[in-house]
Amino acid sequence: MVKNLVILGSTGSIGRQTLDVIRRFKEEFKVLALAAGSNTALLQEQIEEFKPQYIFSVNEDFNKKYNFLDIENMATLKEADIVVMALSGSTGLKPSFAAASAGKQIALANKETVVTAGYPFLKLCKETGAKIAPIDSEHSAIWQCLNGEVLPQKLILTASGGPFRDISTEDMYKVTARQALKHPSWNMGPKVTIDSATLMNKGLEVIEAHHLFNMPFAQIEVVIHPQSIVHSMVEWPDGVVKAQMSLPSMHHPIQYALMQPVRRQNPDLQFLNWGQIGSLDFNTPDYNKFPCLSLAIEAGKQGGTYPSVLCAADEEAVNLFLNGCIKFTDIAVIIKQCLDKHQKQEQTLENILAADQWTRIQAQDIAKNLK
Amino acid sequence: MVKNLVILGSTGSIGRQTLDVIRRFKEEFKVLALAAGSNTALLQEQIEEFKPQYIFSVNEDFNKKYNFLDIENMATLKEADIVVMALSGSTGLKPSFAAASAGKQIALANKETVVTAGYPFLKLCKETGAKIAPIDSEHSAIWQCLNGEVLPQKLILTASGGPFRDISTEDMYKVTARQALKHPSWNMGPKVTIDSATLMNKGLEVIEAHHLFNMPFAQIEVVIHPQSIVHSMVEWPDGVVKAQMSLPSMHHPIQYALMQPVRRQNPDLQFLNWGQIGSLDFNTPDYNKFPCLSLAIEAGKQGGTYPSVLCAADEEAVNLFLNGCIKFTDIAVIIKQCLDKHQKQEQTLENILAADQWTRIQAQDIAKNLK
Repeated sequence: MVKNLVILGSTGSIGRQTLDVIRRFKEEFKVLALAAGSNTALLQEQIEEFKPQYIFSVNEDFNKKYNFLDIENMATLKEADIVVMALSGSTGLKPSFAAASAGKQIALANKETVVTAGYPFLKLCKETGAKIAPIDSEHSAIWQCLNGEVLPQKLILTASGGPFRDISTEDMYKVTARQALKHPSWNMGPKVTIDSATLMNKGLEVIEAHHLFNMPFAQIEVVIHPQSIVHSMVEWPDGVVKAQMSLPSMHHPIQYALMQPVRRQNPDLQFLNWGQIGSLDFNTPDYNKFPCLSLAIEAGKQGGTYPSVLCAADEEAVNLFLNGCIKFTDIAVIIKQCLDKHQKQEQTLENILAADQWTRIQAQDIAKNLK
Repeated sequence: MVKNLVILGSTGSIGRQTLDVIRRFKEEFKVLALAAGSNTALLQEQIEEFKPQYIFSVNEDFNKKYNFLDIENMATLKEADIVVMALSGSTGLKPSFAAASAGKQIALANKETVVTAGYPFLKLCKETGAKIAPIDSEHSAIWQCLNGEVLPQKLILTASGGPFRDISTEDMYKVTARQALKHPSWNMGPKVTIDSATLMNKGLEVIEAHHLFNMPFAQIEVVIHPQSIVHSMVEWPDGVVKAQMSLPSMHHPIQYALMQPVRRQNPDLQFLNWGQIGSLDFNTPDYNKFPCLSLAIEAGKQGGTYPSVLCAADEEAVNLFLNGCIKFTDIAVIIKQCLDKHQKQEQTLENILAADQWTRIQAQDIAKNLK
C-alpha cells in the first residue's frame, strides 16, 4: 500500500526533511504534489527527483512549466493519503482548514493553525474525521507517550532554553541576530530558531498542546532541558511519568507522523548511546527573563483572537529583529503592546485573518516608536 | 467489581506495601487469603485489619486458630482474581506454577520463578491464559513503556549502582553488611538490598526481562542511573526511546500491577518535581568491579539449570555474608565456583529443584574452604 503525499512547504526546513525520510522509503510513499515559496531552484530539483503530479510555487512563470494546482486544492486532492502541512506562519491556515474539511490525515508542522484557530480547527477535524499527526518534536513525543494509555493529568513540555539560557537578563538587550540564530541543539529555520531563543516557541507549543490533547493550561508544565534528548513527557494520576527521547533530529517525528504506528530503521535515525549521554538536566524556566513565554500562555488562556495577535506580532517582530531594526528584547515589547491594544473577538477564520492583518500594522507602528 | 486478592508473602517488604495500596482502595479489593512466614505478630495484625478467609503461616500453632489453607491451594482458589506472588527465593516456584496452571492473573514479585524456570513457566502461562503483571519496578516500567506500541528492538534496564557504585574495586573487599544494607535510593528487604549492592539483582532482572518480554540477551542493556527515577526504558528501531519514571517507591509498580490499565491518585504516590530533580545521570556498569552481573547474564544465556544454580548460590552466599561468615567479594567467588562445577540439565521443575538443593550444599562447602 503506497501512501500518496501532498507536501505543502517542500523547500522549507520541515519540507526538506520530509523528503529525506521519503527518500529512505521510496517503495512506501509517492509524492503526489509539492508546494513551495520562492526557492524555485530547490523546488525544481525536488520535482526532478520525486516527479509529483501537481506543482505550486509563488513564481508564476515557474508554474507555467508544470501541472499547476493551487494549495487549497492540493490539500483536498482525492488521491492524497497524507497532507504534510509545513507552510510557515498564517499562510498555513486556509490550506489546513481545507485539508481538515476533506477529512485528510494531516502531518502538521504549521503551529499557527492550532495556536490561532485551535477551537474551530479541532472541531472541524472531529466532524470530518481528519486525523492530526503532530510533527513538532514535543507534541509528537506527547502523542507517542499517550499510546495505549488512559487519560493523563499533566503534559510536561521540555524546552532546550535556547542559546541565552545562561546569560543574564541585562545582557539580553545586547543579543545579535547572529547569536540568536545559533541554536545549541536543534537545526531549524530562522523564525523557529529566534522563537526558541525568546521561548515564544515554547509558549506557542503550550497553546498547541492545550488544543491537540484537550488539556487545561494549568495542567501543562514547561521544563528546561538543555540536552534536547527528552522531547516531552506525560504524567498520570498515579505519579508515573513517561518520557519520549531520541537524538535531536526532526527526522524522528517526521517519520513517525508518516508511518505510525510502524517504527522502521532508517540510517538517518541514530540511536542514543547511554555510555555517552552523561547527564540529562532539568529545571524550571525563568519567566522574567523570557517574557514571551508568559505572554503566549496568557494569550492562550484568554483565547479568541488573542493567539492570532500573538503570532502575527511575533512574526513581525522577529523579522524586524532579523533585519536589524529592533533589539532582541523589543520582540516581547512589541508583542505585549499589540496584545494590550487588542479587543478580543470570537475565534472564527474571518476574525483570525482580520486580527492578523490588524496586528501587523500595529507591530510596525510600535516598532517605529521604539528607540 | 471488587477484585479478590491472594497475597503470598504478606509480611515481607512487597507484601506489606501491597497491603498499603489495598488500604487506599478498600472498595476495590478484598483480601481473600494471606500467607506469611515466621512473622506471626504482623500476620495477626493483617488478619485483624483485612479479615481474609484463608490463612497460611509456617507456625502450625498459629494456623490452628484460623481457616488454614496451604499455599498451593491458595494460589489456585476459584474466587481469586489476582495472586500476588511475593514469596522470596525458590519457595515461590511451586505456588507460581500452581497459579499459572489455574490461569490466574499473577502480580509477580518473586524473581526466581522467571529466572530459574522462565521457559516452562511462560509456556504454561501461554497455555492456560495466565497473565503476568510484573511488580519489579524495572519490568513494570518496560511493560508500561510497551503499552500500545509495536515490537521494540532493545530493553534498557536501569540500575542505581547500589551503595558501592563509587568506591574502588580494592575497597570492595572491606565492605560490611551494615554498609551493604544501606541502599542509596530504595528501601527493600535485606536479600534484595545485598543483591543490589553486588548488581546480582540487575543480572537476575536481565534474565527475567529476557523471558517476560521475549527479548534476546544481546538486545538487553544495563545502564547505571544513580537517582532511580527512570525505572527502565525501551528502544524502537526508529531510534525512539521511552522511559518510565516516578519517585523510587514500590507502591507505584504494585498499584499498577493491581489496577492496570487504570491509574488512580493515591496520597502515598508522590509526584516528580521537575524544579527539584536537577540531573538524571547515566553511564555504563563496571563489569570487572561487579562480577555478579556478568555471572548472571552468562548463566541466563547458558539456560537450563544454570540460572537455578545462580539463584541458590546467591541466596546461600548472601546469607553467609549477612551472618558475617564471608567477605562481600566472596559472594561472587562462591557463585562462580558453583556455576563452574555444575552440569547443565533441562529446565524442568524437578531438575530446577534438584539443582537448587545441590547448589546449596556446594555453596556451603566452598564457603568453608574460603579464608
